[in-house]
Amino acid sequence: MSWTVDQIAKLLDGRVVGDGNKKIQSISPLNTAGKDDLSFLSNPKYKHLVPNTQAGAIIIDSEYEMSEDTEMTFIIVQDPYASITLLHTEFERRKSQLKTGWEDPVFIGEKSKIGSDVYLGAFSYIGKGVTIGNGVKIHPHVHIGDHTVIGDHTIIYPGVKIYSQSAIGKYCTIQAGAVIGSHGFGYAPQPDGSYQGIPQAGNVKLEDHVDIGANTTIDCATFGTTLIEKGVKIDNLVQIGHNVMIGRDTVIAAQTGISGSTTIGKNVMIGGQVGTVGHIHIADSTKVGARSGVTKSTKSDQILFGVPAMDRHEYLKSYAVYKKLPELMRRIEELERNPLV
Amino acid sequence: MSWTVDQIAKLLDGRVVGDGNKKIQSISPLNTAGKDDLSFLSNPKYKHLVPNTQAGAIIIDSEYEMSEDTEMTFIIVQDPYASITLLHTEFERRKSQLKTGWEDPVFIGEKSKIGSDVYLGAFSYIGKGVTIGNGVKIHPHVHIGDHTVIGDHTIIYPGVKIYSQSAIGKYCTIQAGAVIGSHGFGYAPQPDGSYQGIPQAGNVKLEDHVDIGANTTIDCATFGTTLIEKGVKIDNLVQIGHNVMIGRDTVIAAQTGISGSTTIGKNVMIGGQVGTVGHIHIADSTKVGARSGVTKSTKSDQILFGVPAMDRHEYLKSYAVYKKLPELMRRIEELERNPLV
Amino acid sequence: MSWTVDQIAKLLDGRVVGDGNKKIQSISPLNTAGKDDLSFLSNPKYKHLVPNTQAGAIIIDSEYEMSEDTEMTFIIVQDPYASITLLHTEFERRKSQLKTGWEDPVFIGEKSKIGSDVYLGAFSYIGKGVTIGNGVKIHPHVHIGDHTVIGDHTIIYPGVKIYSQSAIGKYCTIQAGAVIGSHGFGYAPQPDGSYQGIPQAGNVKLEDHVDIGANTTIDCATFGTTLIEKGVKIDNLVQIGHNVMIGRDTVIAAQTGISGSTTIGKNVMIGGQVGTVGHIHIADSTKVGARSGVTKSTKSDQILFGVPAMDRHEYLKSYAVYKKLPELMRRIEELERNPLV
Repeated sequence: MSWTVDQIAKLLDGRVVGDGNKKIQSISPLNTAGKDDLSFLSNPKYKHLVPNTQAGAIIIDSEYEMSEDTEMTFIIVQDPYASITLLHTEFERRKSQLKTGWEDPVFIGEKSKIGSDVYLGAFSYIGKGVTIGNGVKIHPHVHIGDHTVIGDHTIIYPGVKIYSQSAIGKYCTIQAGAVIGSHGFGYAPQPDGSYQGIPQAGNVKLEDHVDIGANTTIDCATFGTTLIEKGVKIDNLVQIGHNVMIGRDTVIAAQTGISGSTTIGKNVMIGGQVGTVGHIHIADSTKVGARSGVTKSTKSDQILFGVPAMDRHEYLKSYAVYKKLPELMRRIEELERNPLV
Repeated sequence: MSWTVDQIAKLLDGRVVGDGNKKIQSISPLNTAGKDDLSFLSNPKYKHLVPNTQAGAIIIDSEYEMSEDTEMTFIIVQDPYASITLLHTEFERRKSQLKTGWEDPVFIGEKSKIGSDVYLGAFSYIGKGVTIGNGVKIHPHVHIGDHTVIGDHTIIYPGVKIYSQSAIGKYCTIQAGAVIGSHGFGYAPQPDGSYQGIPQAGNVKLEDHVDIGANTTIDCATFGTTLIEKGVKIDNLVQIGHNVMIGRDTVIAAQTGISGSTTIGKNVMIGGQVGTVGHIHIADSTKVGARSGVTKSTKSDQILFGVPAMDRHEYLKSYAVYKKLPELMRRIEELERNPLV
Repeated sequence: MSWTVDQIAKLLDGRVVGDGNKKIQSISPLNTAGKDDLSFLSNPKYKHLVPNTQAGAIIIDSEYEMSEDTEMTFIIVQDPYASITLLHTEFERRKSQLKTGWEDPVFIGEKSKIGSDVYLGAFSYIGKGVTIGNGVKIHPHVHIGDHTVIGDHTIIYPGVKIYSQSAIGKYCTIQAGAVIGSHGFGYAPQPDGSYQGIPQAGNVKLEDHVDIGANTTIDCATFGTTLIEKGVKIDNLVQIGHNVMIGRDTVIAAQTGISGSTTIGKNVMIGGQVGTVGHIHIADSTKVGARSGVTKSTKSDQILFGVPAMDRHEYLKSYAVYKKLPELMRRIEELERNPLV
């Protein structure tokens, strides 16, 4: 199922410069692309990245001035941004995920309103008083709890479970098996050593253009709202605790956990398998390296690594010495043996 | 959807001392509450925590003697413990999760018995020879395997998958997407490098008052039973391996993994993203810090941190030096340069 | 529900040497078995492991020469390998998972072909143009996307979600809640700080004899195929990124994450809660210890530990000194105080 550069160019009505027979496996941004990847330049601001990309082929427009002796492969199109959108639509169509109509059986509770051009897969469950916008795709085995609102053009893949009172924005995508609105881990210890559950009365709100990964879990707020702002992208198997707030255009990679009541600013990037304690604030534009453990609030634009997470420069300095610890030990022993030399 | 102190007091038939207009976002125990949290004192044993709590408001009874000049906000009720239970019930009702009756369609296998006052959501699946107690709530898309027993008043949220032969106690709560009884990771290496699956013939038993988080997985025993004792609380995305046993009133936070055949005592607290090796014993009242890796059995009341996990004091001492490693290196170099000074 | 050695021997038509009343909790390979475990010797190559195993009882054939004064317990059978297979089948039957026939309702899309002796559980969903082989078991609430192929004798447990265009081999087992073919985490940053989704047009292919754990997620390729080769075994809650390739007979334990476009060789063993960066190659027969973070490509047969992962010997040496860091600090301070001693 891999594609050649020529095949992609034909689909995009583009012109190939270079090797049209190259096989493409994936699409990546210019700075992370490898030799089997297709990349693209949609904003001239990033044109300096083109000469150094490892991408196998790059979609550009005719404005881009390639050097005469380049050995790179290009696909020249009228509008690279539109081309990526076209590829998206075309691929979805080929995977036949652009479904429409209502399959049978579905369950629809009383007083629910369903918009036009909606796909309802078989065995999907719509609770009471639900509002579903236009162009929404609800795949089989999806559960939409009572009094939930789903915005226009949102896609919900098979088996997603949304608890009651949730608010999902427009143009969101929720991958299979994700859980939205589960009850958070709130317990009060009792004198006999047992735990009393604390009521979880709030809900979850996803603003527009939010993407949620497969089997990710987002707990409802105890009171109020666990809030995921516009444009946030969350990967698979991530845990978002109760009363967390995540600011615009923040991205969180797979298997990360955000503990209850922590707030995250906008444009934050969090790597995979990160953990944070609860009740801290991760400031705007913070970057947290994969597998870090964040134990206190951060300042804007910090880059953090390690457990507990520290400033990247501190981390690298300590780690450089860590690798030399056995040598350090030998040098100390040497000094102890020969104090007078 | 946040609430004011006055609104909560009205619901609880309580009296406000302090600022009734304060907005409450969450409920937390006294020692972890923040300024937007409601907390409560239900046992006099903990009254010393009240003056130092950061909680925005505290539910107390009239026995509690507040200092004259306090600036805190209180809600005085007759029975704080009962008030929390009342809040729980009321919030659940508002979220319309106190469902009753049978929706259509459901699948019920032969020789299954279903108690009174049971909610069966649409598309729920009850296998053969299943016994379901009174007051049980089975939400849509739940799978109850053959010959499983579900105790009275247990709530099973949408899409939970319970394998056959499981035993679930009374007053348990299982959040959406959790899997109970999946086959453990047991394989015997073959001479040609492949692996032969080892039969997984046992089951899972949850005793009464056990809570299981969203998308958590609990493997069945190879033989015998993977046992979760009374009052255990497990958070989201946790992995419990085959033949694990977890003692009473132990709590385990999100994304932690317990490897096969490890046994855990009672009143243990395990933080998030912890891992343990298999075949060890974690003794009663052990506390394991978040992100630790436990590689050997523990003694009662130990507090462990780090990877591999070590006694908290050892960990903090080593970590304190770790942060100074670059300085240590410089001091050794200095000593080497000036051995006679 | 535990079994005695005598009960197992009866089932296998075997003869007990030693204590037939011993209770067995689990089955394990010889080198990891504990005192409550049953183990077995199916290939003479491993007979040296028998005298040192901790297993409570061992299945052997009559070729094995036990020492006269052994205190071990044996079950002597004609063919130990066949006995394990028999145990498997028998246990599955007792757990009544060997289901057949079609329950009602099921959804079957147009132009789908379903083989003979297939179990289709109630509320299972088969999309358009799907091909299902003979002897396949599809449990309730399973979703099989359009144009997917499922090979003969594969077992798919409740609530598994398979996206369209997937290819699943013969004799695979997929545990409850697993997601196959979710869209990978691919975004291109835009000049305004938002992210544009990159189309995910590829699919997932599992070859024969692949096992996938509960609530594990495997992303489809951007183009091409995320490929899991023959005999690979993956545990619960594992994340496999887009365009990953995993070679034959590799095993991956719970909660590990493999980032996009990383390739893994054959016979690799990866412990639990490991993470790898993307676009690296983990060579054949690499072993990666639990909780390691792999940041660069490996050589064949390497054994890696730590974050970032390093050769096991290096790791152990550095870690040995790490534990002595407070002592090291004291010795440096001593040297600084007494430079002339």
